[in-house]
Amino acid sequence: MTIPLHSLTVELGPRSYDILIGSGILAGLGSALQSRFRGRRIAVVSNETVAPLYLAQTRDALEGAGFRVTEIILPDGESHKNWITLQRIFDGLIENRFERGDALLALGGGVIGDMTGFAAACHQRGVPFVQVPTTLLAQVDASVGGKTGINHPLGKNLIGAFHQPCLVLMDVETLHTLPKRERLAGLAEVIKYGVIWDRELFTLLETRLEAILTGEATLMVELLTRCCAIKAEIVAQDEREHGTRALLNFGHTFGHAIESLTGYDRWLHGEAVAAGMVVAGDLAARLGLCPPEEAEQVRALIERAGLPTRLPAYPVEAYLEAMTHDKKVSAGKIRFVLPERLGRAVVRSDLPDTELQAALRANMEPSPP
Amino acid sequence: MTIPLHSLTVELGPRSYDILIGSGILAGLGSALQSRFRGRRIAVVSNETVAPLYLAQTRDALEGAGFRVTEIILPDGESHKNWITLQRIFDGLIENRFERGDALLALGGGVIGDMTGFAAACHQRGVPFVQVPTTLLAQVDASVGGKTGINHPLGKNLIGAFHQPCLVLMDVETLHTLPKRERLAGLAEVIKYGVIWDRELFTLLETRLEAILTGEATLMVELLTRCCAIKAEIVAQDEREHGTRALLNFGHTFGHAIESLTGYDRWLHGEAVAAGMVVAGDLAARLGLCPPEEAEQVRALIERAGLPTRLPAYPVEAYLEAMTHDKKVSAGKIRFVLPERLGRAVVRSDLPDTELQAALRANMEPSPP
Repeated sequence: MTIPLHSLTVELGPRSYDILIGSGILAGLGSALQSRFRGRRIAVVSNETVAPLYLAQTRDALEGAGFRVTEIILPDGESHKNWITLQRIFDGLIENRFERGDALLALGGGVIGDMTGFAAACHQRGVPFVQVPTTLLAQVDASVGGKTGINHPLGKNLIGAFHQPCLVLMDVETLHTLPKRERLAGLAEVIKYGVIWDRELFTLLETRLEAILTGEATLMVELLTRCCAIKAEIVAQDEREHGTRALLNFGHTFGHAIESLTGYDRWLHGEAVAAGMVVAGDLAARLGLCPPEEAEQVRALIERAGLPTRLPAYPVEAYLEAMTHDKKVSAGKIRFVLPERLGRAVVRSDLPDTELQAALRANMEPSPP
Repeated sequence: MTIPLHSLTVELGPRSYDILIGSGILAGLGSALQSRFRGRRIAVVSNETVAPLYLAQTRDALEGAGFRVTEIILPDGESHKNWITLQRIFDGLIENRFERGDALLALGGGVIGDMTGFAAACHQRGVPFVQVPTTLLAQVDASVGGKTGINHPLGKNLIGAFHQPCLVLMDVETLHTLPKRERLAGLAEVIKYGVIWDRELFTLLETRLEAILTGEATLMVELLTRCCAIKAEIVAQDEREHGTRALLNFGHTFGHAIESLTGYDRWLHGEAVAAGMVVAGDLAARLGLCPPEEAEQVRALIERAGLPTRLPAYPVEAYLEAMTHDKKVSAGKIRFVLPERLGRAVVRSDLPDTELQAALRANMEPSPP
């Protein structure tokens, strides 16, 4: 059975770009870039985990289409998403005399995509870049929409730029080598789209969870296409997150606090978002915004998927403090995305402290971390 | 005699902004910002040299208009225009919980303006900033147009962003405390505008040089207004430097090479540009592009102003190598801005190597640096 190639467009006027989704399509990367970058150089940025798996294939696809390729390999992990590591991209580009018309290509997960995009935004005040996300999390979320950046010791993604890629190509075959833990972490973002935007998607996840967990290719292409279509629609409406786009932060205010408190190296981003969605759902139910049984459906699906449903044990004050460093703070108020029902969410910043603290306490691990 | 306040607008659609030029207008800074930033916080970024002179006055002007002010003071000098120092701005903003609607304000010369602008571009993926340039160079050039960034060990301004300020306010009174050497360095950029765009301005410089060197306020306001009007026109036509804006790099290809070879700490930017303009003028004359007597007029004015007219002695190969790291390189070719006659210039990238090397040799100091 051949799995059809899906193609979506993120409509952003002169900055519009395509998302290509399929199985076994990495080999077509070179030809997908040929019209835009003929004769230019491409710097493939990857990490020590992904490079041994997909760099040779990527290089072949690019060189076969006549591109000259430079490799920049970074250490793996969220703890390297900082300026020190970013410098290695600039060093590689500058030492190899990359020019304004040459392109970067991110081959890896969300960290590689965010850092490569940020380097592309800043190198010579902006050069083009291509996203080839190889993790589920990067495919359904980070690679689309142009948010790029690095972490600051006091908070995640605090330093960055909006810089849209000129193409996103995702091959579900790369998911076969993804460790199960990372696949699940990516699934958290898929669940997110269901809760905030697409009840049918949520139902699909509930009914087909076991097949999804095996990574069945046709089903994965369908999931990616569905998530990317939602993301493309939201980004086209609100590129700079003045409104609707904030909904994509569902679970992220609590999630970022978990990552910050645990030093970015014990929880995967998707795991933190999963636990964050449970707290946000519970908070919405406590506030009477969301029917408790629907908040429970969210929690139950996250649990069935094998994702964490509880916050690591830290003082409630530590959570509140960590959340005030978040980018989503406005006029001193923390902004929360809360579900109203499955498939619809709202942004709220005027929450009573007591309910917030109660939700934090009720969904926390009992033991110290 | 009262010197009138001049006001110009840089027309960039939703990113348009005003430039206010006058004498003694720093006290009006707070009210100029009130409509846009009422109730917000402002982080004043300055350096150890400028802060003792103008920070108290700036702070008073802002607090008098009801703003809450945070100070971030950096070390002075081009050699600090790097990521390490930039981090201090991010640290100051994040530790003080600056939010997306709060603003940065650059109080100082080009280095402070470029770094503050770049920090504003990257903090939380973009926050507003205000330019209050206190050096002649920053007033006539760096503070207008949205080019921001830092240096890389291999080249100047290689890492940065286009991020327009939301207001530029320049008070010629700040020029009284500017060391003569820096005033002259700024004058180099004024001469540049005359050569590439405005023959009348060049003639004004030739005829009134002595009065200009004394810093006579009315004359300085006129010069600033004239230079900023040219810059505003060019930036409005070509914000991202796809065409006309490249003319503003007259003298800069050679100038950046001087700065890079001398480690950014012996030559002021304007001094390097001055010597660079002499080489570019001579090169244009050698190529038959520009009448030799007009190239000589450029050299003579630069010499009369007390600015350097010769490159420091380095091997010609070292200059060529340094120039290939410049952002102005395209398809391996170095791009040069060359005068055709006073008031008009062109961009050329197909120059014969022999003429280029001859111009470098003919305009170099004889002794090693």
